[in-house]
Amino acid sequence: MIGCVRDFFTYETTKSVVVKSSTIGIVNRVVQLLIIAYFVGWVFLHERAYQVRDTSIESTVITKVKGLGLYNNRIMDVADYVTPTQGASMFCILTKLINTEDQIQGSCAESEVAVANCTDDSDCTEGADAANGIMTGRCVEFDNSTKTCEIQGWCPAEIDTIKIEPMQEVENFTIFIKNSIRFPLFNFTKGTLLPSITQEEISTCKFNMSNIYCPIFKVGDILKFADQDFTKIANKGGVIGIKINWVCDLDRSAEECKPAFSFNRLDAISESNTVSKGYNFRFAKYYKSENGTEYRTLIKAFGIRFDIIVSGMARKFSVIPTLINVVTAFTTIGVGTVLCDIILLNFLKGGDKYKAIKFEEVSEIRGSLSNSNELYQGSSTQLSVQQLGKHSEDSGAYSIGQHG
Amino acid sequence: MIGCVRDFFTYETTKSVVVKSSTIGIVNRVVQLLIIAYFVGWVFLHERAYQVRDTSIESTVITKVKGLGLYNNRIMDVADYVTPTQGASMFCILTKLINTEDQIQGSCAESEVAVANCTDDSDCTEGADAANGIMTGRCVEFDNSTKTCEIQGWCPAEIDTIKIEPMQEVENFTIFIKNSIRFPLFNFTKGTLLPSITQEEISTCKFNMSNIYCPIFKVGDILKFADQDFTKIANKGGVIGIKINWVCDLDRSAEECKPAFSFNRLDAISESNTVSKGYNFRFAKYYKSENGTEYRTLIKAFGIRFDIIVSGMARKFSVIPTLINVVTAFTTIGVGTVLCDIILLNFLKGGDKYKAIKFEEVSEIRGSLSNSNELYQGSSTQLSVQQLGKHSEDSGAYSIGQHG
Amino acid sequence: MIGCVRDFFTYETTKSVVVKSSTIGIVNRVVQLLIIAYFVGWVFLHERAYQVRDTSIESTVITKVKGLGLYNNRIMDVADYVTPTQGASMFCILTKLINTEDQIQGSCAESEVAVANCTDDSDCTEGADAANGIMTGRCVEFDNSTKTCEIQGWCPAEIDTIKIEPMQEVENFTIFIKNSIRFPLFNFTKGTLLPSITQEEISTCKFNMSNIYCPIFKVGDILKFADQDFTKIANKGGVIGIKINWVCDLDRSAEECKPAFSFNRLDAISESNTVSKGYNFRFAKYYKSENGTEYRTLIKAFGIRFDIIVSGMARKFSVIPTLINVVTAFTTIGVGTVLCDIILLNFLKGGDKYKAIKFEEVSEIRGSLSNSNELYQGSSTQLSVQQLGKHSEDSGAYSIGQHG
Repeated sequence: MIGCVRDFFTYETTKSVVVKSSTIGIVNRVVQLLIIAYFVGWVFLHERAYQVRDTSIESTVITKVKGLGLYNNRIMDVADYVTPTQGASMFCILTKLINTEDQIQGSCAESEVAVANCTDDSDCTEGADAANGIMTGRCVEFDNSTKTCEIQGWCPAEIDTIKIEPMQEVENFTIFIKNSIRFPLFNFTKGTLLPSITQEEISTCKFNMSNIYCPIFKVGDILKFADQDFTKIANKGGVIGIKINWVCDLDRSAEECKPAFSFNRLDAISESNTVSKGYNFRFAKYYKSENGTEYRTLIKAFGIRFDIIVSGMARKFSVIPTLINVVTAFTTIGVGTVLCDIILLNFLKGGDKYKAIKFEEVSEIRGSLSNSNELYQGSSTQLSVQQLGKHSEDSGAYSIGQHG
Repeated sequence: MIGCVRDFFTYETTKSVVVKSSTIGIVNRVVQLLIIAYFVGWVFLHERAYQVRDTSIESTVITKVKGLGLYNNRIMDVADYVTPTQGASMFCILTKLINTEDQIQGSCAESEVAVANCTDDSDCTEGADAANGIMTGRCVEFDNSTKTCEIQGWCPAEIDTIKIEPMQEVENFTIFIKNSIRFPLFNFTKGTLLPSITQEEISTCKFNMSNIYCPIFKVGDILKFADQDFTKIANKGGVIGIKINWVCDLDRSAEECKPAFSFNRLDAISESNTVSKGYNFRFAKYYKSENGTEYRTLIKAFGIRFDIIVSGMARKFSVIPTLINVVTAFTTIGVGTVLCDIILLNFLKGGDKYKAIKFEEVSEIRGSLSNSNELYQGSSTQLSVQQLGKHSEDSGAYSIGQHG
Repeated sequence: MIGCVRDFFTYETTKSVVVKSSTIGIVNRVVQLLIIAYFVGWVFLHERAYQVRDTSIESTVITKVKGLGLYNNRIMDVADYVTPTQGASMFCILTKLINTEDQIQGSCAESEVAVANCTDDSDCTEGADAANGIMTGRCVEFDNSTKTCEIQGWCPAEIDTIKIEPMQEVENFTIFIKNSIRFPLFNFTKGTLLPSITQEEISTCKFNMSNIYCPIFKVGDILKFADQDFTKIANKGGVIGIKINWVCDLDRSAEECKPAFSFNRLDAISESNTVSKGYNFRFAKYYKSENGTEYRTLIKAFGIRFDIIVSGMARKFSVIPTLINVVTAFTTIGVGTVLCDIILLNFLKGGDKYKAIKFEEVSEIRGSLSNSNELYQGSSTQLSVQQLGKHSEDSGAYSIGQHG
């Protein structure tokens, strides 16, 4: 029993050969140095493998646009040009509106002259879809010179080819962005609005790359950061991404956990296209006359859509990943041996000699032999245990148990 | 000093035993082959461990629905049946509308007969919530045959049990989806709209699984891809997910970075339920009469909600992950030895003999001995260094330093 | 040829030294035990490294608010106080409304007295932006005692400083949340609505932490879970996050895959601020009079925004990660040797002796030697192969090939 316990508490370590060669010694140390440098420099200092990470950031964005525009002799305020109105992370500032006022359900001439022009009723298929309604099968006057198919639908039909200027004031509008984040793993909370900010600062400051804690963004500045031309994007519409990235090392002070802002045009790729450039959509305002007839103003709106995308990662020292990576580092240092062995045994002069020392050869011990232990005595070892050296027969000196 | 430097530049490698046994040799090579196959096949070819990955895809979606429907003798266009109107990644196409027109604030009979029917005022609790308003405590005539509690609220109360048909034309509506993505790590941009696409192609093509670069999706097709029945979903409402997955190997040409589309019903699980099937919501259009009274049209809308979910991952060759995985592969090959050792020492005939060669036994070297070096000379080695073989005493041939 | 094949099917294993010392033996076993405990306890039982994971959850949320409020002598229903109306994962329940009725485009006195008060026209810059419109350059009467600059814009200008009470009934409103999820890798679908739930249960139950499958959430309860005071948040507005986290071990029964709910205030950090507290936004309802003049009701709305954030992870047994981690565990056990070696060779009495046995020293084998094999015979080995022990010269017994 005690023997068993004793046998259990033994320690097994590999038998090693120490080669005192400066060539292979230097190679060995350089390889080890590279591995250590990799672990210290990359894994620990750059990748911070001693920390646990939390990427499941909880975030909320509250936005508010300010500014007044003059469009079609009307003053436009935030309730007029921002949609959706809820002040969420995605919103659109309308820059150009094509209004078709007082549409009612009825029949009228189609407005898309290029597609729907006709000379008589036979050119118009009853029940077929036109751009703005369903054809009635009749050909009617669109204007003095042109006839188009009559449609049933919201009349008069929209004419969206007219050239109008976008609202220039949009460039000076400001967007207030309030972003609060939380890393649930560390219960760490922060926001783009510093607790120390005063009402006065907020009303005077403008965000720029060196003043990231001012939450007031001028639309013109955002477009500049994203390398976009205001006139072009205001005319055709587009989508601008405002990316807020929180990378926080919670081993340092909370102040150093700063948001990184980046701005770019999200629908950039579609700009390389000849078709379907920009961003626009249609919506309607519905009215009712005293007699109960519903009518509407159809609006084709071009605008700049802002998508505020929040991402983030927090990290903090933790014992377990530190331990794992230290152990991995030690293991990997050992792996350097593989490379050195290849050099030592194959490329270094005297490689065969090293082989002879490193490797001890054992021929197959046949089953029959294990039943006849008596045969194993004395010189029989010579047959089963041999040094591996190629020259072992010439220079018997390598054989263990061979006594000259 | 030079000695120290010399001692530092030494190389330590393990002393090995080479067993020339075909049984264990084959096992060894097979194990190594499996490990190499695993690393080459799975880790490198399948998992592409030699590449770095970027999963933080930046994406924007612009959508536009087209089509005309006939509903309640009115032509419905995109401004009527799409909500929200902004053309974002989530939108709803209304298929069935229950309108309650000309509601004003006032009091009237509750419409939910099953719950609010009464015979006299004592059945109605003043101030209690009914479905459509707050009870006044009186019992009034709902129609000629029924009396219900009177409510204060928007009157007349909505009757949402009427059976009406959904708008059949929705099946033929088309959705134009413009998705632009960017992988910030590699600054790689692509979109579902190829730069080469022409206006003509866009106006004629329809998306299908073999024509993924046509951005025009027929609603009926999407439902078919998601295994849904149009009549059922149009009647009850539902949520359809359009998933666009970009998996891009940037070591290959940019053309091979293709979006993979998949369609399925996101609220599928609630369909197995008996309660609360489908998807509907209420909204109102507000009007004002000349005398300043506000009135509204309450709309209970059933619709198909489309959620466009974009995900993606790009990968590209990088030196560091390649190196790490090559090193890991080499290390792991070494681990095969553990298995082979178990076989060699325990299951192979002659295992004890192999043990005797592999293991060299050292008994505890007591502190006292290290102070009496003279005792270590000559035969004393025999006491501290022994071969492990069980039969080592019978067959002394295995002992180092024992000379027959 | 056969020789080559034979040479290929050899097995190489390290030669080991077995130290029968109880001290190092116990250290060795304890280290191994710790490593095994770490792998079994942490890696396998806690981290479940034998499973593959799917974190790309597909989710959809359908919400529906119920309840009636009394505000400004009007009964407010869901179409009045919920926005956006689509019943998606983000919606806002309005709690306080500042209405500015019957605004028309025109000119009137600015309402922000503190900023825009004036004594004569010279105080007002024509064309400059005021809060509610563009200055005309005239100074006009705001009320009997005050004069402010005249503005062009929507008139009368909004006065948002009036104190009004929030709608108290919001606390008793209920939110019905229907969340369906899917893990695409395992094609596993579940939802917050159990298939067994009945219409009666849904109409009577209320969600609480011990009844998570009731999908009806009282607003007051949600605020309590998030440690918020209703009166405060209803007055200033705020954003509440409802987090649904699905962590599913699919090796167990599907019933054990439960959603975990957590509630917290997402804009908490901005509450520590003195400026820009709460959450509010402006929108307008547009009307048209019989003569075609557009007028609107501007609404400054305070509300509670609810963001329903769904996350999740599913895992299931898989052969490959299991194998990898078993192999890693075995490798790591071997690494324990590094620690034990340090102890054995440096801190244990007799360390030098162990060194002598563990390490076999080889001096540099010079290139010339490999060309003069004859020199290697017999005693020449003594020169190149030496035991490392410091005392090797005193106690020659350690040298292989040295025969007394």
